[in-house]
Amino acid sequence: MSTQHDEHDAAGATGVADQVVAAAERARAASHGLALATRAEKDAALQAMAEALLTREPEVLAANGEDVARAEANGTPPNIVDRLRLTQERVAAMAQGLRDVAALPDPVGEVLRGSTLANGLEMRQVRVPFGVVGMIYEARPNVTADAAGICLKSGNAVLLRGSSSARSSNAAIVAALRDAIAGTGLDPDVVQQVPGDSHDSVKALMRARGHVDVLIPRGGAGLIRSVVEESTVPVIETGVGNCHVYVDRAADLDKALAIVLNAKTHRTSVCNAAESLLVHADLADTFVPRVVAALQEAGVTVHGDERFQAEDGVLPATDEDYGQEYLSLDISAAVVPDLDGAIAHIRRWSSQHTEAIVTEDLAAARRFTAAVDSAAVLVNASTRFTDGGEFGFGAEIGISTQKLHARGPMGLTEMTSTKYVVTGDGHVR
Amino acid sequence: MSTQHDEHDAAGATGVADQVVAAAERARAASHGLALATRAEKDAALQAMAEALLTREPEVLAANGEDVARAEANGTPPNIVDRLRLTQERVAAMAQGLRDVAALPDPVGEVLRGSTLANGLEMRQVRVPFGVVGMIYEARPNVTADAAGICLKSGNAVLLRGSSSARSSNAAIVAALRDAIAGTGLDPDVVQQVPGDSHDSVKALMRARGHVDVLIPRGGAGLIRSVVEESTVPVIETGVGNCHVYVDRAADLDKALAIVLNAKTHRTSVCNAAESLLVHADLADTFVPRVVAALQEAGVTVHGDERFQAEDGVLPATDEDYGQEYLSLDISAAVVPDLDGAIAHIRRWSSQHTEAIVTEDLAAARRFTAAVDSAAVLVNASTRFTDGGEFGFGAEIGISTQKLHARGPMGLTEMTSTKYVVTGDGHVR
Repeated sequence: MSTQHDEHDAAGATGVADQVVAAAERARAASHGLALATRAEKDAALQAMAEALLTREPEVLAANGEDVARAEANGTPPNIVDRLRLTQERVAAMAQGLRDVAALPDPVGEVLRGSTLANGLEMRQVRVPFGVVGMIYEARPNVTADAAGICLKSGNAVLLRGSSSARSSNAAIVAALRDAIAGTGLDPDVVQQVPGDSHDSVKALMRARGHVDVLIPRGGAGLIRSVVEESTVPVIETGVGNCHVYVDRAADLDKALAIVLNAKTHRTSVCNAAESLLVHADLADTFVPRVVAALQEAGVTVHGDERFQAEDGVLPATDEDYGQEYLSLDISAAVVPDLDGAIAHIRRWSSQHTEAIVTEDLAAARRFTAAVDSAAVLVNASTRFTDGGEFGFGAEIGISTQKLHARGPMGLTEMTSTKYVVTGDGHVR
Repeated sequence: MSTQHDEHDAAGATGVADQVVAAAERARAASHGLALATRAEKDAALQAMAEALLTREPEVLAANGEDVARAEANGTPPNIVDRLRLTQERVAAMAQGLRDVAALPDPVGEVLRGSTLANGLEMRQVRVPFGVVGMIYEARPNVTADAAGICLKSGNAVLLRGSSSARSSNAAIVAALRDAIAGTGLDPDVVQQVPGDSHDSVKALMRARGHVDVLIPRGGAGLIRSVVEESTVPVIETGVGNCHVYVDRAADLDKALAIVLNAKTHRTSVCNAAESLLVHADLADTFVPRVVAALQEAGVTVHGDERFQAEDGVLPATDEDYGQEYLSLDISAAVVPDLDGAIAHIRRWSSQHTEAIVTEDLAAARRFTAAVDSAAVLVNASTRFTDGGEFGFGAEIGISTQKLHARGPMGLTEMTSTKYVVTGDGHVR
């Protein structure tokens, strides 16, 4: 989080808090109309938002150029600058993302259950929007358009608090989206950038209980932890993935090798990449040399237990390694005595995001999927499949690693609450 | 919350926190076995728990006698002492409650959705327990048995932190339940009383993030607010109900009168009782005199706006009245210009628990149920129907007034999370 505005005085902090609450109140008022908007109205707005991004691409790229120049002048590492940088292709992808959301079904109004009670009351549970959602996120400006689209389709007004390093890009994107929304007759205050880019605005969002219904932090572990610990607004925790692949005694070793390599190396900077490898003791002599060689060939540094250290180039693994989400070409590795040893290791170290077992043994697969308590448990498949797109949700606001409300990839339905609608004819108790 | 242990020093507070974490860790270990228990095993435990309460009734009543005597000696008001008091009938009702939970279907393992993805991966979303649930509640000792039963059936270990005024009763109940559970082969640490009865133990529960998965406060508004604001463990907020009945221009006035009387007077101390009455301006002259007379006849004090004050005995209503959950024979009342005026009043003052409209006009009913954002919205029925038992859930742990995870009456299914189980045959991306 940026702290460049730390010179503000207490009056400044109060000012930002008041502005955030005022923005949330405008969002609340706008959300009432959005909650009643038809799917056709919302889809028209999404198409107009996509169109506006394409039409105003030069403006968006120019604003992004300012952010990139400032980041480079500040000595920001090139990989972070790359996350920040927009191109014609990336703007086109944002627009396409909005059109994709328009093509998805409307979650609002879906009837989850319903029955006629013994006394004749007709009861149904219906999906409704949360109301006002706060998004706190880092670096990538494309999240601004993605989050605005998902929130609008699910009937929620959104307060966007992106990274201060992307403030010019985000402002240009939000301006384009708001004009497009206003042009279709919806209230543009359903999409707002949070006023202020000091940490005070984040604090104000976290204290806006009653004004903001749900807060979703997306970014590094530090950001997420601070929001979870400090917020009085209900939070949906996303993302840290210390994901394990367990190669069972009954594994097909070719499948195991392919899955370990894919899970570790397909994309290292994402939360569903594998960070730890567990191998059944009976396979130590056959599989450990083979998997270490293949991982090293792919450029991966292996941090292993004693058995793994018997292979050339394997570094010793510490507790810090087993507890870590590397997000790099590193993997921790250990030999476990058996299936229950693997489950115990996972219970101790996992962040409960995604765990995979490789086995041809049905009983082992059943036991692993029942006993491992993670958002996703995979059998004979790469951890990389835990993803809203792969699951067919069509859009994803993040991957929840908490157990309350939503767990795993969150699509449009996870951005809703429910209410009970009960109809009678003068019923009393 | 009791503060009689305020003389403890910092070391004492640390001691309680450590004990609470240790209890939570025992609960976690026990929860692993409970999560895998079959329905038959859980139902056998519930039946044994019911049996134990009946067998050990003298012990439970004797312990309760100590609590009642202490409360009376402290000058506790008679209505609070009554909530605390157990009788043979109340113990029998607790036992029957456990048997009722045994008769309900097991939520764990229910498949919520599933499909075969384009690449052949089989994906399903399955209900799983939360793991460790913390309950913080006041006065009534019967909540101890109810919460233990609901948590056990839904596969959750529970840490029970009841009122210190009920500590002897709760200890006797928990002892009976734990012995019964152990007798059926399950780990008795799935039901534990939280060590310590000072406020430190509540604080320790609220800070036990990672050890406790969900915290559910049940009690007065002050308790709930403090837990919601201070807890770093995810919270399900229950219960404050400032519920409204709106009598529309197109209401059948006989139904309206019956519903208002039932909603206000059937039971005043509960969260689904009506606290505020709104009447369409066109009915002011016909319905206001009639409803005021009927309410006063039933012993209700009406706190009304100017039009209501034209009737004898109506007190003036302040903002405090409109914002209040009386839980007594009082009701606030106002005439509103039209349906949208009623919706605006409700948006301003409601706690979003339950709102009812009385109308024969389909368009008015549709608009009210769509625009009013409360856990339950009723048409031509008393607010008293917002209840797990009435909705056919069979058991209720509380009524959620938040939008995250669960909204409205929470039964067994609301006491679960989900996970995705995905099965492939060597799938990689």
